[in-house]
Amino acid sequence: MKILVTGATGFVGHYVVQWLVDHDYDVVATATSDEKAKKFAWYDSVKFVACDYYSEEKNFYEFFGEPDILIHLAWKGLPNYMMRFHLEENLPAEMRFLRSFAETRKTKIVITGTCYEYGVVNGCLSEDMPANPTTVYGVAKDTLRRYLSFLAGEYGFSWNWVRLFFLYGKGQSPKSLLPQLDAAIERGDTEFPMSGGEQLRDYLLVEKVAEYVCRIALQDAMSGVVNCCSGKMISVRQLVEERVSELGAEISLKLGVYGYPAYEGMAFWGDVSRLHEVIDDA
Amino acid sequence: MKILVTGATGFVGHYVVQWLVDHDYDVVATATSDEKAKKFAWYDSVKFVACDYYSEEKNFYEFFGEPDILIHLAWKGLPNYMMRFHLEENLPAEMRFLRSFAETRKTKIVITGTCYEYGVVNGCLSEDMPANPTTVYGVAKDTLRRYLSFLAGEYGFSWNWVRLFFLYGKGQSPKSLLPQLDAAIERGDTEFPMSGGEQLRDYLLVEKVAEYVCRIALQDAMSGVVNCCSGKMISVRQLVEERVSELGAEISLKLGVYGYPAYEGMAFWGDVSRLHEVIDDA
Repeated sequence: MKILVTGATGFVGHYVVQWLVDHDYDVVATATSDEKAKKFAWYDSVKFVACDYYSEEKNFYEFFGEPDILIHLAWKGLPNYMMRFHLEENLPAEMRFLRSFAETRKTKIVITGTCYEYGVVNGCLSEDMPANPTTVYGVAKDTLRRYLSFLAGEYGFSWNWVRLFFLYGKGQSPKSLLPQLDAAIERGDTEFPMSGGEQLRDYLLVEKVAEYVCRIALQDAMSGVVNCCSGKMISVRQLVEERVSELGAEISLKLGVYGYPAYEGMAFWGDVSRLHEVIDDA
Repeated sequence: MKILVTGATGFVGHYVVQWLVDHDYDVVATATSDEKAKKFAWYDSVKFVACDYYSEEKNFYEFFGEPDILIHLAWKGLPNYMMRFHLEENLPAEMRFLRSFAETRKTKIVITGTCYEYGVVNGCLSEDMPANPTTVYGVAKDTLRRYLSFLAGEYGFSWNWVRLFFLYGKGQSPKSLLPQLDAAIERGDTEFPMSGGEQLRDYLLVEKVAEYVCRIALQDAMSGVVNCCSGKMISVRQLVEERVSELGAEISLKLGVYGYPAYEGMAFWGDVSRLHEVIDDA
């Protein structure tokens, strides 16, 4: 069983590759930088192929050694959710890339989507709700998902679209909330400026996310969209307070410095019933 | 006031150009074929520019003489709603084309959308419902609409997205229902094979559609999406029977020969309250 992982050096990607290596799968890993890949413990246990698939047109299925499963995590330019390149550049490149595998009918295609496909909504979000994205990134991802389902209808391969919610863990972008908090604590700051913190979010540890992505990719029972999240909500304030307490730090939260983003609901979390059908101990 | 009309030789387009000429606007009309354009009465009253904007990259705003309003009706390859070229080829070309005008901030952009953006839904469809398209065409149009709204947010120009429902009238594609009926009557057929005919649809005469598109383009009060339809429902069977009766023909309807398309609801029509706000005698 050969598994191709794109975005292998990314936040989720390097955990996905490590999980697959730990479980003895034959892994082809790709990302743009070989240098970055070399820093990971799994580097010598996989076949790493540096490739910028956005700027190349080729038979990617053959180029990557005819994988049985594609776990496609790459997406350029994140976060920058409101920049037009998501639609203008990424989407056409992504369609070309997927077509390479779809046309062979031989590769299961598994792609990570985003809770931003749902749009500005509140409450428990289930996979069958109409997506109504309001960020450029969300629209591009949503359109790619619909495109994938058309390809699957035409060529008849299995696929999963794994919608990620909020993640945390080691290796996250320094611009994210918890890494910023950690940096502030490390600097010895006495105050941490943040939003009001009352928004309710669904957070999952990145190692768990990576494990679920792999196990969804490896199952055959269900094709289609699946939320990959905790199903539980936590206020951003509580998340931050728990981290402060975990680190035994003394820093006071300066709430309300930043506004809430207009492209997010105030309180939403994922319906995990489908995830639990696929992964019984999730 | 200079108005550029794309798709000028199409079913809606040639009526739009005629309406604008009749109302003394300065019209630049474009389509791929000069030969086809020459057949229309308006040809000598407009500046006609043959152009295949899908295959060219240029400053279209300058190329078309700096129009104040763009009425953009062109879209290649219709109907073929389930073919992938709508997303793979049309969408990137459409985005490039719109950007040319958007970046100048000088052109109001008016584009015809489709009831297929709503997806498989029933009842009265209003503009604020989340779009959930299930045809490739519908997804491509929906994505372009969202892209246009992002462009407008960034550059600050006025725009309208005019969602068309079902149309009839002279000049329609011979593959459409009523032209097929007319042809069967003309051939002297005794039977007309059709679907069950019980689906309820919102039909509007193409001259009315063209008039509304122009008047929406010319108003300044409302930016955004507007349904362009009758707001009334009629069964396809009744529509056909009325046409038979109008022509004084004798032909019996053979109902149930064709199935109902999977990508359409059984009974849907457009909410016209927003249309009525914009056009008081609609």
